Amino acid sequence: AGKVALKDASDPYRFDPDRHPALKRNTEKPFNAESPPELLVDNFITPSSLFFVRNHLPVPEVDMKKYRLVIEVQGKKPISLSLQDLKKKYKKHTITATLQCAGNRRKEMSSQRPVKGLSWTFTAISNAEWSGVLLVDVLKAAGVSLDDPKNCHVQFEGLDKDESNNPYGASVPIEIAMNPFREVLLAYEMNGEDIPTDHGYPVRVICPGIAGARNVKWLSKIVVSPDESPSFWQQRDYKSFSPSIDWDTADFSKSPALQDFPITSAICVPSAGQKIDGEDGEITLKGYAWSGGGRGIMRVDISADGGKTWQVASLQKPGQRPYQEWSWTLWEVDVPIPEGFKGNMELICKAVDSSHNVQPDSVAGIWNLRGLMNNSWHRINVEVN
Amino acid sequence: AGKVALKDASDPYRFDPDRHPALKRNTEKPFNAESPPELLVDNFITPSSLFFVRNHLPVPEVDMKKYRLVIEVQGKKPISLSLQDLKKKYKKHTITATLQCAGNRRKEMSSQRPVKGLSWTFTAISNAEWSGVLLVDVLKAAGVSLDDPKNCHVQFEGLDKDESNNPYGASVPIEIAMNPFREVLLAYEMNGEDIPTDHGYPVRVICPGIAGARNVKWLSKIVVSPDESPSFWQQRDYKSFSPSIDWDTADFSKSPALQDFPITSAICVPSAGQKIDGEDGEITLKGYAWSGGGRGIMRVDISADGGKTWQVASLQKPGQRPYQEWSWTLWEVDVPIPEGFKGNMELICKAVDSSHNVQPDSVAGIWNLRGLMNNSWHRINVEVN
Ligand SMILES: [Mo]
Ligand SMILES: [Mo]
Repeated sequence: AGKVALKDASDPYRFDPDRHPALKRNTEKPFNAESPPELLVDNFITPSSLFFVRNHLPVPEVDMKKYRLVIEVQGKKPISLSLQDLKKKYKKHTITATLQCAGNRRKEMSSQRPVKGLSWTFTAISNAEWSGVLLVDVLKAAGVSLDDPKNCHVQFEGLDKDESNNPYGASVPIEIAMNPFREVLLAYEMNGEDIPTDHGYPVRVICPGIAGARNVKWLSKIVVSPDESPSFWQQRDYKSFSPSIDWDTADFSKSPALQDFPITSAICVPSAGQKIDGEDGEITLKGYAWSGGGRGIMRVDISADGGKTWQVASLQKPGQRPYQEWSWTLWEVDVPIPEGFKGNMELICKAVDSSHNVQPDSVAGIWNLRGLMNNSWHRINVEVN
Repeated sequence: AGKVALKDASDPYRFDPDRHPALKRNTEKPFNAESPPELLVDNFITPSSLFFVRNHLPVPEVDMKKYRLVIEVQGKKPISLSLQDLKKKYKKHTITATLQCAGNRRKEMSSQRPVKGLSWTFTAISNAEWSGVLLVDVLKAAGVSLDDPKNCHVQFEGLDKDESNNPYGASVPIEIAMNPFREVLLAYEMNGEDIPTDHGYPVRVICPGIAGARNVKWLSKIVVSPDESPSFWQQRDYKSFSPSIDWDTADFSKSPALQDFPITSAICVPSAGQKIDGEDGEITLKGYAWSGGGRGIMRVDISADGGKTWQVASLQKPGQRPYQEWSWTLWEVDVPIPEGFKGNMELICKAVDSSHNVQPDSVAGIWNLRGLMNNSWHRINVEVN
């Protein structure tokens, strides 16, 4: 209460919560922070307090006495649900799923050629257990059918608003929302507790396998529509382009909005520039690999000689059902240091998913002006003494 | 009849049909042939006579008076269906789907380092309309449930047999077979007619988005099992490995069987080595792009300067429902020839799928001893005069 009193009532960020000091802060207002890489790979489930935070706008004030989730379907009466209604009327469903910001690893892309966006390194990604109700159950109860040609997209609106009072918004295709195998959740618990403020209390959409930006926090409204969300973030922001397209030639109206993620991976331990004692004879590498759309990880390869030879990492497989592998795979490998080797050593990782998709060798072919979906081989340099 | 009389009754290949002379023959016994690239890109639907052929064994004799498709489920009475039973008892379902051999583009991989397998160039891929019944309908009628933990794989057996009388076989995970969105077919028509002999008459499994080898021809038996198909091709053949794994270190028992395809694309026109008249001012390129698992094609990029700059190709989108995009996307683009340019010109294509998966820049990182799933950037050289 003392703290709240100190906050300026005209500051739109006055409802932002306190955060864990170990988060690697990127921007304060809105709050954006990565998870600490060493702690990340030590936990299959990321503790909520260390889960990366990607806020586009100020954290909203939520009055639970008034909170209602509204569901609008053309030609039907709108449905209005309190949090208790949601919990009581629909079956509870739990999944473990990784969320990643579409701009994760943007910094590497930027170092090739400047791009627009937050300069994330490689830990704007985390994994948590989410509980809530299946979106498909709620939509079916609302009378939505996949066969109705005017039901094309499911739009989500958050309680967070920009200066012009426009809410944060996103949408996913109806084929995702209505497919029970895709397990899209209206989640009200994260890691067994109420979803923390920074992650969307009381209700957050969890679209497993899909770009973080579509996993709308502080959910207030669902609209089934022939059109995608009209929001800036759906229409003009989270879209990718060919490497030769610049801001003069980019036509956002013709580029599809990002949804499912491609395969990616990164080395979290050791850190770039770390000094390694060559007399240890080996370096232990740890990291994550993840793919979108429910695809699992088949293999992670590591090279310490620029890609000439590869070593296969040990995988901590999440044990999820095939084609519903929403969680990342943590991996570990001991890489031998050649006897007498001193100086700079480049370490590379790359992964293969269950659809045999692989990561591209370099950033050049996937560079895009918004710096999105950088899934090139992850390379770091360490110094062997 | 004259032709049949000439065939040697001891030749296991005596039931092989005549083939179209335009097919690019690879091996005769068993018969394996690619589609002609120029004709391939002129037809969204590949005419059946020009559809690539991948036979592992001699074409079997099929006696339609005796033909029965048998479905075996543990703890249930086996079901035996004639072709007429199949057609009458289940609803007809039609999809347009691309099939690709997992070894397509093996020749490019081989030129990096030798691999084992048929030396395919880039047209062991074709697209057809398939009609039949949904496998999920037949399995449900047979009492199969996705929730029964002993139902893990659906095995398929063909009528074609090796010298030891073992049938060709393959399996797919139950999660694919029982998912209506995956649209696995027991197909009895190809392009509106009975399936031709080379493509599996009377019934072929069509697993859209999955490696050709799992789309079993001349289907005789379906077995729902806790295990994958015991066949050589499932257990010891269509599997991939890390680039540093050789025949001494490869452990087939630990590598998962290939299923869904990754994103790929190729330039079909012009052909490698073709002479181009520089005074035309441009070269028209045509090709295909395709991804497995129902993912569609978002973009195809073309470079004529070694990947420094990229031009976006025009796409002939199949217009299929999102996440059920089983057909390839044909593309076309006019690439300008710089004024006065003479000599060798390298042309590169690469595609992006709806999950933002991309092709790797080079073969080096995906090289594997069986030469499978080569989806690196496709590069050809032409000569500008
Ligand atoms: Mo994001
Ligand atoms: Mo194949």
